[in-house]
This record gives sequence, C-alpha cells and structure tokens, in this order.
Amino acid sequence: MVASVADFVWRNGGNIIHAEQHTDLSQAGADQPGLFFQRVEFELTGFAVQRQDLAEAFQPIADQFNMDVLIRCSAELPRLAVLASKAPHCLIDLLSRWHMGELAAELVLVASNHPDHRELCEFFGVPFYELPVGDSPAEQDQQMQDLLKSKSIEQVVLARYMRVLSPEFVEQWPNRIINIHHSFLPAFVGANPYRQALERGVKVIGATAHFVTADLDKGPIIAQDVAPVSHRDGVTELTRKGRDLEVVVLARALEAHLDHRVLPYGNRTVVFH
Amino acid sequence: MVASVADFVWRNGGNIIHAEQHTDLSQAGADQPGLFFQRVEFELTGFAVQRQDLAEAFQPIADQFNMDVLIRCSAELPRLAVLASKAPHCLIDLLSRWHMGELAAELVLVASNHPDHRELCEFFGVPFYELPVGDSPAEQDQQMQDLLKSKSIEQVVLARYMRVLSPEFVEQWPNRIINIHHSFLPAFVGANPYRQALERGVKVIGATAHFVTADLDKGPIIAQDVAPVSHRDGVTELTRKGRDLEVVVLARALEAHLDHRVLPYGNRTVVFH
Amino acid sequence: MVASVADFVWRNGGNIIHAEQHTDLSQAGADQPGLFFQRVEFELTGFAVQRQDLAEAFQPIADQFNMDVLIRCSAELPRLAVLASKAPHCLIDLLSRWHMGELAAELVLVASNHPDHRELCEFFGVPFYELPVGDSPAEQDQQMQDLLKSKSIEQVVLARYMRVLSPEFVEQWPNRIINIHHSFLPAFVGANPYRQALERGVKVIGATAHFVTADLDKGPIIAQDVAPVSHRDGVTELTRKGRDLEVVVLARALEAHLDHRVLPYGNRTVVFH
Amino acid sequence: MVASVADFVWRNGGNIIHAEQHTDLSQAGADQPGLFFQRVEFELTGFAVQRQDLAEAFQPIADQFNMDVLIRCSAELPRLAVLASKAPHCLIDLLSRWHMGELAAELVLVASNHPDHRELCEFFGVPFYELPVGDSPAEQDQQMQDLLKSKSIEQVVLARYMRVLSPEFVEQWPNRIINIHHSFLPAFVGANPYRQALERGVKVIGATAHFVTADLDKGPIIAQDVAPVSHRDGVTELTRKGRDLEVVVLARALEAHLDHRVLPYGNRTVVFH
Repeated sequence: MVASVADFVWRNGGNIIHAEQHTDLSQAGADQPGLFFQRVEFELTGFAVQRQDLAEAFQPIADQFNMDVLIRCSAELPRLAVLASKAPHCLIDLLSRWHMGELAAELVLVASNHPDHRELCEFFGVPFYELPVGDSPAEQDQQMQDLLKSKSIEQVVLARYMRVLSPEFVEQWPNRIINIHHSFLPAFVGANPYRQALERGVKVIGATAHFVTADLDKGPIIAQDVAPVSHRDGVTELTRKGRDLEVVVLARALEAHLDHRVLPYGNRTVVFH
Repeated sequence: MVASVADFVWRNGGNIIHAEQHTDLSQAGADQPGLFFQRVEFELTGFAVQRQDLAEAFQPIADQFNMDVLIRCSAELPRLAVLASKAPHCLIDLLSRWHMGELAAELVLVASNHPDHRELCEFFGVPFYELPVGDSPAEQDQQMQDLLKSKSIEQVVLARYMRVLSPEFVEQWPNRIINIHHSFLPAFVGANPYRQALERGVKVIGATAHFVTADLDKGPIIAQDVAPVSHRDGVTELTRKGRDLEVVVLARALEAHLDHRVLPYGNRTVVFH
Repeated sequence: MVASVADFVWRNGGNIIHAEQHTDLSQAGADQPGLFFQRVEFELTGFAVQRQDLAEAFQPIADQFNMDVLIRCSAELPRLAVLASKAPHCLIDLLSRWHMGELAAELVLVASNHPDHRELCEFFGVPFYELPVGDSPAEQDQQMQDLLKSKSIEQVVLARYMRVLSPEFVEQWPNRIINIHHSFLPAFVGANPYRQALERGVKVIGATAHFVTADLDKGPIIAQDVAPVSHRDGVTELTRKGRDLEVVVLARALEAHLDHRVLPYGNRTVVFH
Repeated sequence: MVASVADFVWRNGGNIIHAEQHTDLSQAGADQPGLFFQRVEFELTGFAVQRQDLAEAFQPIADQFNMDVLIRCSAELPRLAVLASKAPHCLIDLLSRWHMGELAAELVLVASNHPDHRELCEFFGVPFYELPVGDSPAEQDQQMQDLLKSKSIEQVVLARYMRVLSPEFVEQWPNRIINIHHSFLPAFVGANPYRQALERGVKVIGATAHFVTADLDKGPIIAQDVAPVSHRDGVTELTRKGRDLEVVVLARALEAHLDHRVLPYGNRTVVFH
C-alpha cells in the first residue's frame, strides 16, 4: 500500500514532503488484519493531475486496497465557526491566533447563547451571532444548526460553549466538532470538573480536547495536558490555572485538525506530527 | 496559634528552620472556622526541653487551641516494610534509594506473595519474606498483618503489590500504607488501567501515590504525575512508559511522607514543601 | 523573628491568612547567619492599627531584627505599564487577563516603538503611546522614561519589547521591570534564541521571565518553563510553540509579582506560593 | 525515493511495520536540496532475500539515490558496555532495565575507575572491570579503549562516568558513545552544573543525553527533560531531584538508540518515534 501510494505521487511528478504511517493491531486477529493509516503530503506544483481530478485519478488505488481516502489541499481553508458562552479565554485566544495567521481556516462566524462577546468579535472582524436559549433549548439548538448550515460551515469549535448539543445536531457533524473539556478525561465527566477535582484531592488538573459525539464527554480524544496543583488551590485557583491549560490544549488540537493530521476511528484518534 | 507555637520554640531556645501553614476554608461557614494546618521544623540542639518531655511541655498550647499534634524527630527513623509482587521496578528503585541513603527510614523487610525477589533483597541486605496466597487469601492477609506487627513496622509501602488488602488489615494502619496506582486517579480505577487507557484513547497516562483506605483506589492522594503517549503506544508501550512514572511518583510520595510533610485529612492531603 | 511578627499581628487583633518562611544558608558561615525571608499575609479588618500607621507601628520589630520590610495592601493596585513591539501574543494575553480581572494592577498604559497595537489597546480601553526610535535610540529611551515617570508607573512589563533599555533606564526601576526571554536562560542569551536552539539541536525549548538588570538577560529569574520539540521543528515551528510558553511564563511571573510573592535578592528570587 | 524503497520491500514479499521520513530543509538552497531521512521497519519472515544478502540486494537503490544505508536486524543485539564512576543511580537503573529485558542489547561489561560497583554488577550477572586512574590518566584511557576493543563492544554508555575521554578515544566510536549530562545543555557546560544552576537561580533543572564528541558537552543531543525547582532547593536537593531526571533521560535515549530510531547528522539528531 505504501509502495502504491508513493508510486502514484512519483509517477505523476509529485514530491512527497511528509509521510507517516500507523498500523493499529489491537483489533487484529487470525483473519482480521490491523487497521492501516497513512498520511502523505506532497507538492501539487507541476503535478500531472489537476486538483479537481485528483480523487478520480487515485480511485483505482483506493479500490484495490479498500481504502478510505480524504484528499485535502492546504490552500483550501475550511470554513470554521466558534461557539462560545460567557467565559472569554478560549475565544479571545482563537481570535488572536486567527488574527496572527496561525489558524489554517476561514473564521466565518462566532455564535453564542449570550450577547457578551459581540464587541470583541467585531473588533477582530468576525461576525457575531447571538442565539439566546430563552424558553426553548430545543429551538435554540435548531437555530444554531440552521445558522451553521446556512453559512456552509465545515468545522465547529466549542470554545467553552456551555450548552449540550442535541444528538440530532451532533450527528450532522461527525468528527467535525471539537470541544474543550476542563478535566483530564475520563476523570471528572460532566459539570464542575474543578469542584470535582478539589473534592477528590488530586495533585494535577487537566484539559482534554475531543471530538463531540452524542455521548457527552466520551468522544475521541485529540489532545490532553495537565498542570500540577496543590492543597493551596481552591476552586478559584484551579479554575484560573485550568484556563491556561484549556487555551493551549484546544489550540493544539485545532491546529492539528486543521492541518489534517488527526484521523479519528472508533473512539480513538491517530494524531500524526 | 502561629504566635503561640513560634513563642514556644523561641522561649525554649530553639531555632525554626522551616515553618509552613495552610488554612482550608472549603468547609468553613458562619460558626465553623476553616481547618488550620501547620508544620514547624526546629533544631533540638540546646533546646531547653528534652526530646522525651516535648509532648508534655507542648500539651498546654495544644489544649488551648484544640490542636492535633504530632511530634517527630528526624533522627528517629520509622520502621518501614515494602510489599511487592512480581513486577520488580518499584522495589528495585526503593532498595536502590535506601542503599544510597535517600530514604529517611529503616527498611526492615520486604514481603511478597511470590518468591521472585528474594535474591535481590538479600543482595541489598534486606530480609525477604515469602507469604504465598495458596488456597486462602484471607489467611495470607492475616499472616502478612502478623508479620508486620511482629516486626513493629510503622510504615508500609505497596510497591506494585497486586493483592487487595482486607479492610481489617487497612484499618490497622490508617494513613500509614502508601500504594502506587498506575493511572491518574480517579480515572481508571481497578484492574488493568493501561488497557483501560488504551481503550479510551487517552493522550496522557499517569500514576498516583495514595494512602490506602478500605475503599479501593479512593484514599487520599499524595502525588501524581503524567507522561504523554500517542496512538503508537499499545499496552506494552504504555506499561513500559508507565513504569518510569510509577517509580518516580512513588518515591516522591514516600520521601515527602517520611519527611513528615504529608498531612492527610478526610480524603485529601496537605503536602508541604 | 517568626514569634515577634506573629505576635505583632495577634496583639493587634489580626488574623494570619498565609505565612511562609525561607532561610538561605548558601552564604552562611561561622559568624554569618543565613538570610531569612518571611511573607505574612493578614486581614486588616478590625486591625488595631490603621493602614497609614502600619509601617511606623512595625518599625520597632524591624529595627530589633535589622529587617528589610515591605508592607503592601492588596486593595492598593500598583500602576502598571506594558511595553511591546510588533509581536502581539504577550500583549493580547495581558490585555485579555486584565480584561478578565486576573491582574492585580491598574493597567495605565501600553507603549511601543511601533504603531501596530494602537487599535487593540484602545479596544481594551488602555491608552496607547507610540514612541518611534527614529535616528536616536537614546532619545527614545529617554522619552520612554519620561512617559513612565509622568504617569507615576510603579511596575513595568516588557511583553516582547525588542529594544534594549539603557542602564540609566534600568537603574531607575530596580526589580520592577519584568521581561520575558524566549529561551531557558542561561542558554541562548541574546538575539534569535530559537535559531540558536535549532542550531544546537536541543529537544526542549523554554521561556524565562526575569527582572531586568543592566546586564542583558542576566537578571533574577522569576519563572521558567519548557516544551518538548523534535527534529521536525524548524525556526517557524519553534517560534510558534515558543509563543505559547512565553505567554504563560510571563503571566505566571507577573501574577506572582503583583501578589507580592516574589522576593528578589542578589541574582536570585524567592517565589512563595 | 520513498516509492523505490517501499517497492523493494513489497517486491520481495516483505511487510512494512513502521516507516518514517523527515526532510531537513534548513541547509537547502537553489542547487542544494534538503537532507532526506527515512527509517523503514519491515518483517523478514518469508522475505525473498536472506539477511546476509540484504545489503548487496539493496545497493542498487542506494547507489541510484546516493543514500547512506544502515541495515539492522532486531534479533541481532549490539554489544554494550557501561562506564560508571561512584554515583550508582544510572548504573543501577540500566542493570535493572537489562534484567527486566527492556534493553535491546547484550550488556557485555561494566567498567569503572573505582571499585565500588563490583558486587552490584556481579549480582546482576555482568562482568565488572576496575581500571583505576592512578598516576596516568592517559594510560587508563588507553586501557579502557583496549578493553572495549578486546570485547568487541559496539555501543558505549557513560552512566555518570566522571572521566573526560581523550579525543583519540572518542574518534574510535563516532556516534556510538552516549553520555548523560546533568543540565539542560547548552546551559551549564562542564563541572558542577547543579552548583552553577543554584548560583544562576534557575527555576528548572535538566538533564541531557547526547553522543560524545571530542568537544566536551557539545555532541548531538538525543533526549532532554527538565524538572521544576524552587528557592528551597540547595545543591543537595538539586542533585537529588536531578538524579531522577538523569536516570529517565539516559534510559529514554539509549532505548531509542538501541531501537535504531536515532539518526545523527552534523551536530543534530533525528529521533523517530
């Protein structure tokens, strides 16, 4: 398989910049080979096949090996939406990274269940939509979905968005919604993880960026990190220290995802470097 | 309280080397002040009160403030027992630290449910006791307890000892048995945490040193640390990477405990530096 | 000394919240005792001595032990200036933390040798001053000093300010200017530390927050942290990864300093928790 | 190149387990392409070419692309020697890992300028050679070289060996001697790095595993890690904390090297995962 793909690139005059492979043998058995993952990055300049014909030209190889194939071009920026609530730290960080040119995406809009961040978003030149929950959470959920669809959003980031998305919503965006949870999952699922952490008396706190699935806090993990804490830290200090973790972990996961280095399968991810 | 203790030391010609305080206000309320913790380390040379009279001399201050008091002398090494099973890494590390004079304890014995480590212990000059489980786990549990009592053991370390101690055993040694669990608790309680970690697809693994209570893996945490892992790591690699964590986290917790810097209360610990 | 200070607080009806001590014995000798550091935080509510009389009331104890004393009140916010150049990441982060109420300071102004960040600062409600270098670096240095003095600035943060301050400038602000250097000092002093890191082939990069002295990159270190890198990282990737470090290390140092937990002495610092 | 290598494996009935590539473009220019690195791991079972004929069979591809080729078989364990002085921690750790089957090498001997570790080595079944320095360091250096050559040693580990090897010695073992230095190089080159660290007042200490070159502490770095320290840590505490770092960093570097994942070039290394 490696030989066939490399040959395809070489035969058409391409130059491989990066290539990584991984085989997951954990499910393998007598008549069940492992799962094989490959990411090949090559230059299109002078390539014999045009961008729009790439998928078709590669199809015979995909068929031969029964591959799932995803072809992405780094010049085609995915349309990204950020959903936030009241906490500003992850949102400011994403806006700031986008402003500095660090995010390989088109940041199309920010949407929130609160009005707080309108000025901030507008300062950074990103349209802001307020969708208050009011009496009908289900209706707000539907409005959010309609908004994202009407704007042709491809990737969604929940930057401390404090609403649980409905299963119907989530199913529309398989492995395309990234959330930041403020604990080292699977510890402290659900609400108030910093309070849970305090009550358990842990000596590290963590943050986890994961794809959102219908199962709350159970989706495939993309990135995690932790920070040391001590008996001196109450909920306020844990929350403050956690903010710096959340910001960095979410950014690292999003960067990898936008760089097409994250390959989710089942409940896991391959994250190539 | 701080003033009274400092005055007691000063009045008797002592010199404070280290002093740390902590107030836990998380349970505090209108008529319930917070819990106050203090560790004062002072030199006994030239002190007006003899070692054996210290407790009595301090009692009036303890009574005045309704303090729990523990007086320890760094020259009095606690009698320590290490319990191990087949995995040698934590045991070798503890023997090696003891050999280098890093452990402020008298390492009285190593006991195991397997015969494997006899030569190793004898090489380091530590008596080794094999207590096989055989047909009766309860009997082995009782034999172990008898052994520790007969040798006047004061502190116990479970260095990857793979037996669950009975509640009756544990109750005899409140906050005096330290265990190393190979996950960042409360994640992955119970058996095979590295397999659980693989199946959840986490990006960090951890180790947790904690006091043993009747509730499995739920005792007060003393130290935790984590290491990054990736999709490349199967159970074998996780286990190998985890070993280095276990060794260091257990040693760090034991060192703090033997230095009388760990103050357990309820399900938490204060760990002074 | 501990007893006298604790007694002073107790006698006047105060309540000690936190107290930490440290003795540096590294310079101690036969007739030279170690240096003793102490930080005592107590509540002023109901205290028998008024805020403005505190220094005088404490003076007898200070005299008795030949102490250097600094009395700070957490309600009195120091007047802070941030100096920046073109790189926006540290500046945005500080503005954002100030906006969220995380910085215990009054952010009086931002000054820069470039015009780039005017809108950003004004969005966050902080006056922005552009002081271009032009033909005369010495003159700009003087203008900067005049600006800070005219605004009664007490603390200065160099948030990736790419000008070297003159010794005359620095002497005016002993241990009151904090800089972030983008390496784990003392490695990679001077210009282009990420390029130096690449050329040396290191496997970790770092950031160092330190007080500025007349000796470039040699002042007392307040905080440091590192991140792993690999052969895949060129200068661009090192710079990007380093930015996240710089932001967090600078914020951590500034937070400790504004909380009066940093006690510089000689070329070192005591940083209480 | 990727295609040719993959095709070679496929054509002969092999199965690629892991493959990683890296291109270093930092020296690249108009008529100077980057350096290309590749590591391909494949199963020999059923391979059409016998082990002893592999190099010759591959030569045409190597010639075509002007490759440097190294063919290693995981069943062929390199002959390893460990050199140590008085500090036992790294030596005990390596003996213990070897004992647990973690090191993919044949541990042929331990040599030292001191007699201290004879019993330890013999307990683990490894021959121990004492080569005291006496009056002639040059002579001891020569004796050491003779010993290693006479035992057909292929890889050397300096496990806190406190002698500087002569340039003549080092030149015999290009990129085959690994040393652990107790600082995060390039900081604190030379003697007493923990004392240097204390005097500079750093807030992290580190350890660096590197290949030994004639230039002291300047060889290609394989692995580095750091640990946080504080003002409380004197030289004794830094040394103690550092030991845990040294042990882990050296083991990690050696493991990668024995797994043929370390590719040194110039003053750097590619370390594949």
